[in-house]
Amino acid sequence: MTDLVNRKPGSPIGLHRVVTPAGVLPQAAERLDPSPALWPDEVRVRLERLNLDAASYRQLATKHGGDGAAVRAEVLDIVATRGKMQNPVTGSGGMLVGVVEEVGPDSPLGLAVGDRVATLVSLTLTPLMITDALARWDGGSEQVPAGGHAILFGRSIAVRLPEDLPAPLALAVMDVCGAPALTARVVTDAIERGKPPIVVVIGGAGKSGSLSLAAARASGAARTIGVVPVQSEADALEAAGLADHVVVADARDPVALAATVRRGGGPADVTVVCVDVPGCEHGAILATADRGTVIFFSMATSFSAAALGAEGLAADVTMLVGNGYVPGHAAYALDLLRTSPDVRALFGARLAQHPT
Amino acid sequence: MTDLVNRKPGSPIGLHRVVTPAGVLPQAAERLDPSPALWPDEVRVRLERLNLDAASYRQLATKHGGDGAAVRAEVLDIVATRGKMQNPVTGSGGMLVGVVEEVGPDSPLGLAVGDRVATLVSLTLTPLMITDALARWDGGSEQVPAGGHAILFGRSIAVRLPEDLPAPLALAVMDVCGAPALTARVVTDAIERGKPPIVVVIGGAGKSGSLSLAAARASGAARTIGVVPVQSEADALEAAGLADHVVVADARDPVALAATVRRGGGPADVTVVCVDVPGCEHGAILATADRGTVIFFSMATSFSAAALGAEGLAADVTMLVGNGYVPGHAAYALDLLRTSPDVRALFGARLAQHPT
Repeated sequence: MTDLVNRKPGSPIGLHRVVTPAGVLPQAAERLDPSPALWPDEVRVRLERLNLDAASYRQLATKHGGDGAAVRAEVLDIVATRGKMQNPVTGSGGMLVGVVEEVGPDSPLGLAVGDRVATLVSLTLTPLMITDALARWDGGSEQVPAGGHAILFGRSIAVRLPEDLPAPLALAVMDVCGAPALTARVVTDAIERGKPPIVVVIGGAGKSGSLSLAAARASGAARTIGVVPVQSEADALEAAGLADHVVVADARDPVALAATVRRGGGPADVTVVCVDVPGCEHGAILATADRGTVIFFSMATSFSAAALGAEGLAADVTMLVGNGYVPGHAAYALDLLRTSPDVRALFGARLAQHPT
Repeated sequence: MTDLVNRKPGSPIGLHRVVTPAGVLPQAAERLDPSPALWPDEVRVRLERLNLDAASYRQLATKHGGDGAAVRAEVLDIVATRGKMQNPVTGSGGMLVGVVEEVGPDSPLGLAVGDRVATLVSLTLTPLMITDALARWDGGSEQVPAGGHAILFGRSIAVRLPEDLPAPLALAVMDVCGAPALTARVVTDAIERGKPPIVVVIGGAGKSGSLSLAAARASGAARTIGVVPVQSEADALEAAGLADHVVVADARDPVALAATVRRGGGPADVTVVCVDVPGCEHGAILATADRGTVIFFSMATSFSAAALGAEGLAADVTMLVGNGYVPGHAAYALDLLRTSPDVRALFGARLAQHPT
């Protein structure tokens, strides 16, 4: 047990671990303090595996021309220098899987020693120390078996890995779990205001899209409409039975998308954008009814295209930046998967095709 | 009177005026049809003046090295070629002032022949024909006296210029009128859910910021806090009495901003971001209480910084893309100015310093 005597309370977002530059958030820091001794509200996790962000791994592999030893050496150097795994070129990190080793007396995370957990906060803000020189990793994949430890802050998000689901499936669900949770909240709010909404999910056959469709139905949506780009995805989504209607449309073509959604039973009261393709803002706005809501989950969303698009169309719609954090999001998404064989089948098939 | 016989109803967003490429929205079109004959839901406006978007004018003036005649020739060429004033390099347009010349029988805009109006939709989607060769313009400023006409669609936004306010003041208010209207709606929603909110406006001494502070107070906010970057702005805002508290902080420094807002009576239930400076997303999130709302009005907002920032901070906040259109927004903002001498004084001073 670490000596906790005389330690002042830590900052729930980890400001006390920032070494340089002083006063910034851990994600913006050049260097964090990854020392194993805990502040009272922290948790230390023994590492099993790092999952490097795809963009980060690609940059490293390309830079070193596929020389795995050189990739490994650079990852070790980054972690030793920065106290976290944040690729200085891409700015991105990844996540980790490990086992809880020590829990500070004031930790609010509800974890116990021995819990096997995955972090849902980025490695870019997680203090990290590697002690095995990554000897079990050949540098040839973004999956990195690792020895050492990581530190979780009071407000870090870590989730116990469920014992009834394969770890890759559970991790893939957790990766997109913000979308179904926020969709459920927006649908529930609409019902409380008096009207079960018509929900359109653009990219309804994907990972976040299929879970969002399931969440909309489970929350009491009046009707769910899945929009997909090609007939093969429409067939898969139809077969899964996750949406009341399935339509094929190019989400980048606003006029065609809005007309197709209308024919499929729209316009939408709630439109959820789950496709990582640029240029879907105007279509989502145009497919949504007056006083409806658009939730943008795609990282390809352009803020100005959304803001100026709604203004240009005189569209009185509420537009939400899809916040990946909603309390209880991981448990909610895993339960959707457990209770709906259709979601699990579609999601599993999608995972097999696009493992990352 | 134009012959309206045999005209089918127009599209409220002007799809019937798109010439090339077929099927896109007017804003995305290469060329619109600006012919004067009206569809039944349209309005024709006789031009008085175009206000070119600042970025567009700068590009043209720079390209032609300050040769006003060449700038004029290029604007004439753009409008003749495209049927609208959309700078092909910057993609931006501007707005116009004119007098209503004809109103289609099915127009929902509530305008009458002879009304002097300003358009609040961009010139990038407004059919435009120039008939005086811009003879009264020397090409030396973004204010363009112009003869000719423009077409308003069923859903275009045009506002009668008030007779009791100077036109430059009214136009400046209309330019930012979406911010106070949406702020008022969010504050009212919070009150209906049971709790008058604490409202923080970042950039509270600016045009959209000062109106948002006034809107928050008028809508029943429990407390208003204005955040400004320098002491001179704090003094001006204090003197105007528009905010219950005024604090000085760098909005790009999340830790300092959140601490300052807290000392000023925060955290916020509603945070309104009105400064056009990149990097304010994390500070706005950190200054906002759990289950609070952040409204991003700055066009410098990064969608991914907001989405990933909230996730990294495990912040359960609702984040809104500031939609510049809320029904009645212009009338609401003008009324705020009329009924609050403090707003008018601050706004007028700001306008004198930063006319565009």
